[in-house]
Amino acid sequence: MKRFSRAWFSLAIGATLISLAQAAHTQTPRPLALMPLPSSLTLQGGEFEIPSDLTIALASTDSERLRNAVMRFQKRLADKLGHPLTSHIITASAGTIILDIASDGEAVQGPDENESYKLTVTASSIAIHAPTTVGAIHALETLFQLVQPVNGTYSIPQVNIDDSPRFPWRGLMIDCGRHFEPIAVLKRNIDAMGAVKLNVFHWHLTEDQGFRIESKLFPKLTGKGSDGLFYTQDEARELVRYARARGIRVVPEFEMPGHSTAWLYAYPELASGTTPTGIRREFGVSDTAIDPTREATYHFIEQFLREMTTIFPDEYVHIGGDETPAPDWKTKPRIQAFMRAHHLRDNAALQAYFNQRVLAILTSLHRRMMGWDEILTPQLPKDVVVQSWRGIASLDAGARQGYSGVLSAPYYLDGMKPAEVHYLADPIPADTQLTAAEQKLILGGEVAMWGEHLNQHTIDSRIWPRTAAIAERFWSPQNVRDIPDMYRRLEIVSVELESLGTQHLTSEDAGLRDILRAEDISALRVFASAFEPVSFSERYQQQHTDQLTPLTTFVDAIRPDPPIRFHLELATQTFLGHPGSNDSQTSAARDQLQSFFTSVAASIPTVELEAENAPRLQPLKMRIEQLRALTSIGQQAIASLSSGTAAPSGWKQQSLARIADAQKPSAMVRCLFLPQLTDLVNAVQ
Amino acid sequence: MKRFSRAWFSLAIGATLISLAQAAHTQTPRPLALMPLPSSLTLQGGEFEIPSDLTIALASTDSERLRNAVMRFQKRLADKLGHPLTSHIITASAGTIILDIASDGEAVQGPDENESYKLTVTASSIAIHAPTTVGAIHALETLFQLVQPVNGTYSIPQVNIDDSPRFPWRGLMIDCGRHFEPIAVLKRNIDAMGAVKLNVFHWHLTEDQGFRIESKLFPKLTGKGSDGLFYTQDEARELVRYARARGIRVVPEFEMPGHSTAWLYAYPELASGTTPTGIRREFGVSDTAIDPTREATYHFIEQFLREMTTIFPDEYVHIGGDETPAPDWKTKPRIQAFMRAHHLRDNAALQAYFNQRVLAILTSLHRRMMGWDEILTPQLPKDVVVQSWRGIASLDAGARQGYSGVLSAPYYLDGMKPAEVHYLADPIPADTQLTAAEQKLILGGEVAMWGEHLNQHTIDSRIWPRTAAIAERFWSPQNVRDIPDMYRRLEIVSVELESLGTQHLTSEDAGLRDILRAEDISALRVFASAFEPVSFSERYQQQHTDQLTPLTTFVDAIRPDPPIRFHLELATQTFLGHPGSNDSQTSAARDQLQSFFTSVAASIPTVELEAENAPRLQPLKMRIEQLRALTSIGQQAIASLSSGTAAPSGWKQQSLARIADAQKPSAMVRCLFLPQLTDLVNAVQ
Repeated sequence: MKRFSRAWFSLAIGATLISLAQAAHTQTPRPLALMPLPSSLTLQGGEFEIPSDLTIALASTDSERLRNAVMRFQKRLADKLGHPLTSHIITASAGTIILDIASDGEAVQGPDENESYKLTVTASSIAIHAPTTVGAIHALETLFQLVQPVNGTYSIPQVNIDDSPRFPWRGLMIDCGRHFEPIAVLKRNIDAMGAVKLNVFHWHLTEDQGFRIESKLFPKLTGKGSDGLFYTQDEARELVRYARARGIRVVPEFEMPGHSTAWLYAYPELASGTTPTGIRREFGVSDTAIDPTREATYHFIEQFLREMTTIFPDEYVHIGGDETPAPDWKTKPRIQAFMRAHHLRDNAALQAYFNQRVLAILTSLHRRMMGWDEILTPQLPKDVVVQSWRGIASLDAGARQGYSGVLSAPYYLDGMKPAEVHYLADPIPADTQLTAAEQKLILGGEVAMWGEHLNQHTIDSRIWPRTAAIAERFWSPQNVRDIPDMYRRLEIVSVELESLGTQHLTSEDAGLRDILRAEDISALRVFASAFEPVSFSERYQQQHTDQLTPLTTFVDAIRPDPPIRFHLELATQTFLGHPGSNDSQTSAARDQLQSFFTSVAASIPTVELEAENAPRLQPLKMRIEQLRALTSIGQQAIASLSSGTAAPSGWKQQSLARIADAQKPSAMVRCLFLPQLTDLVNAVQ
Repeated sequence: MKRFSRAWFSLAIGATLISLAQAAHTQTPRPLALMPLPSSLTLQGGEFEIPSDLTIALASTDSERLRNAVMRFQKRLADKLGHPLTSHIITASAGTIILDIASDGEAVQGPDENESYKLTVTASSIAIHAPTTVGAIHALETLFQLVQPVNGTYSIPQVNIDDSPRFPWRGLMIDCGRHFEPIAVLKRNIDAMGAVKLNVFHWHLTEDQGFRIESKLFPKLTGKGSDGLFYTQDEARELVRYARARGIRVVPEFEMPGHSTAWLYAYPELASGTTPTGIRREFGVSDTAIDPTREATYHFIEQFLREMTTIFPDEYVHIGGDETPAPDWKTKPRIQAFMRAHHLRDNAALQAYFNQRVLAILTSLHRRMMGWDEILTPQLPKDVVVQSWRGIASLDAGARQGYSGVLSAPYYLDGMKPAEVHYLADPIPADTQLTAAEQKLILGGEVAMWGEHLNQHTIDSRIWPRTAAIAERFWSPQNVRDIPDMYRRLEIVSVELESLGTQHLTSEDAGLRDILRAEDISALRVFASAFEPVSFSERYQQQHTDQLTPLTTFVDAIRPDPPIRFHLELATQTFLGHPGSNDSQTSAARDQLQSFFTSVAASIPTVELEAENAPRLQPLKMRIEQLRALTSIGQQAIASLSSGTAAPSGWKQQSLARIADAQKPSAMVRCLFLPQLTDLVNAVQ
């Protein structure tokens, strides 16, 4: 939706980026580590050397939010440099860093907030111009990412950046219903969201498995429905402030009429028929549903939502609305009578009636309604927003009918897919059939982090760094699609995010230590590098988990799409280009592959011994055996390909059979190198 | 103070522990991993196999606190096993685990709380008997530590334990004044305290550098004195509840009359003369002091402390009282006149007057006063408790005068000493000269974690696992002093503590990644294993830090007393016993030493390259050079000693000179293997 500047086209491909820098000025050629990439960037050559005494001048707007953002920047900068930094924030038009910000922005940030900024770095100063504080916050994040080492010291390249987001709605949903996440976890994730310019934290607060937000009007919601694991109103308000300080909106979700066991256990009078006897521990779709036929239901919802608007100022309220089979609606005479009286011919029609009533309540509370695909029914007014978990066809169908939409289906993190798969999925693909007007209705996208298999230790590695790549999809121009360059930058951003507070890298070590109950996990760490978690649904097939299932097994410790996976892919393709060659590229690729297979193979005897004393490694016994065979096949394939000698008769068939065997489900993890190994084996004569 | 049972003596030495198990029953010999060791333990042979369905019977007391403790135990047990565990808590006298608890204990836990328990594990059931819920909480921690892998599955050895603490006051002080620590950090540290049976969290809440507890009566205390970094009253109350649930008291400290810059910046009318113009950023002793001569001062303190008693129910309130040079008291005519009028001949006398007034206030609030050594002045009533930072002589002197005392001097973690040094320091050493009555006045000890060089990322590795060893000193019989066995158990407990939530192990990796700004830190990790942080005072000499100094350098990432240090010490002594021998012990020791020197040496070229691009590694250049030489000396020494050949002429002298050179201050870290290397070099012919 935004125009790309000319400068952009030279930036879009990583390799070109370096040569651009080299062409413009031979002094300090180095690739940048920005993510998301700005819509326009021109390197001017040379560096801005960071002085130990900074004067930060607020040239126009001087708000508390802006000052706090500047102070956070200062602190992070000093931490990155590792030495003290004296700095002064003054109201003036000149300084080391000048922030010329036209206004603090809307009192309540919405999708229309102007988030653009201009950032100019010269040899002597840094200038940020933005229409709002939110733009300034984004500019400071870009500036922080520009601070990179050159010749043993940190500096900032001289640069002109003119940046604004492609989509106004760039969200991350975290499901805190199925498993509760402490506030500290949400705060560190909001920090990370800010670092990659996401702007909507969609807070999934209620589920069959738990009601997580305090209601003073209806205290049993958490009193009975949460196991004591919920956010107080003060905590929620503080989180809203925390997010706003980082340019992030908080859209709360209260699931209705389905996914409502916790509501109905607390207040059985709201139930359609079957009343729950406790919080639901099982996952999956529940039969319980709020009764849409009683006036008391709407009175309750009106009071509840009114109370929630005192906590959540955002214009949008998400009512869920998905997965409501509600068999009671089909069988209860009272409900059937109501449906006949109101000419509602099926459950979908009854749910549409319910939605209309809730919409009227929200409208009276000056809120707009948002819901999952299912809320989209013919009578629905056009000012609701549909979040699509069904996919782009469903999203586009909504847009053609005039509904605003947010795409979520391709951004389900529990699919455990590689970042590149999410990255290439576009809310408005290049070949979209939507008209320009319809495209305007696609507000953006939302990453969905469902909570069945999450706890506070594992959540970060499921969200990060993959979500940073998706954040680029939502912010940067449509043609930014260079996978190797994305992965190159993602590795740097990943570490920067941990510096900011997430634990997606260290949590793997912590998980492995917890399993081994020993500090030294060097062998297990190498062994683990050969595996990824399987997807949510594959896991669910292998182990029928519920809310009380411990999440402390090997699959919980390891990460989806670790960097090694893409490195192996690159090395395999490079090596297979000229497997017999000894040119430097091929040799490096061969070394990488050999080193991987050799070191994983070397870890096996130790891990095997350790498994004897680590009960939670016992289910991996079959994987250990497979890995022994597979690493050996890898080494043999490289040897054959390098020397150009044919494999013994039957080897290829046997090897492919071994690979096929390793693809069968076991221990809820998959060997991450099977596609590359298959390519190698197939290439052998 | 407690009697040791006969069983104890066979347990006190690790090696004997194993042979005890072997002698009694040949079935499953294995060393236990308890810390602190119980005062009496008898292994019965055989195992209790943990069923997947547990019935936990509350036979007498059935309190919310007890139920919560049992539920936490259940959850942790399932997490440890890694598979679902069905469990039911019932009120009955029979079950898989029976808790027969006489009472919930005192409404406010004090030093007199009965913390003893008996734990009996047979083949078919587990019984816990304790006079209070606090005893039951300790018993559950012991039981959890007993869950260890045998033959690929977790089980619990059949055992009789009769346990109670040697000292009633077993504390950890955390300074949250100089650097603020978020509540989540305190909670995870309180969890860890509970795991090793510490029972007093001493919360150092005010400092020159920050006032950290909200006062609604005097809002400027945090409004001006905290940079916005403080605990709300709700948060503090919640922390008190959290600690009580784990059998831990919370003793708050409000420093007066010195260390009070934050108070006086907020309320200058309390100042003796010089009024601060801001929060003090520098560390060290400040000249500012509360004015002890004005009635308004006592009115303020009375109101403030009254408010604090609504948050902190503990019988004790710590008033600090240390380091108050207060030059204003010597120069201000008004103060001098007051001193003459009240016959107070010097600053010490004036401070004693102040303490008496504060004591009267505390007494009226039904609280007892605690303070650092300096409060101990002749007129002080005997019901105050003195915390000794000056050492055991000062502590004993207090006891001889009839004062109760708590020892802290040998437990200053910022000295960065090995665990064994703290471990051997005893509040009542075997050769104490105190009478039995005087010994009763020694309530115990407190670990002190001062905050100059701490932040939320580094604090855990300064506290843990060393504090677990000190906790054993405070709990277990006096003659439990086996260093190798302590270290053996400490390595296991260390990992268990991380599983419980501390980050002392993973924080090193996170810190190194933050420095390198790269995910792969394998070389730097090995390199770092050769170093420890220098002590607080050595660091302060090399870098005059203040509150705003970034704590993101190499010294902040690495840990004091990592396991490798003691392993090297053991290996060196073993190897030097028979350096030319090829018996299995000597060979293993030789291999360990060689492997250490070889792998550290191998890491150097990579780290050297990485340092070029990691500005925060630049100060380590000299250390890199030294390590190259030192590892080579180590390898040469092992070779000479193994082959029995003499070193070339001058080699020894040159090598010792290199070692001496490496002992000079640089980069705020020390090579941790220099004592062992010196021994090796000296042993060469």
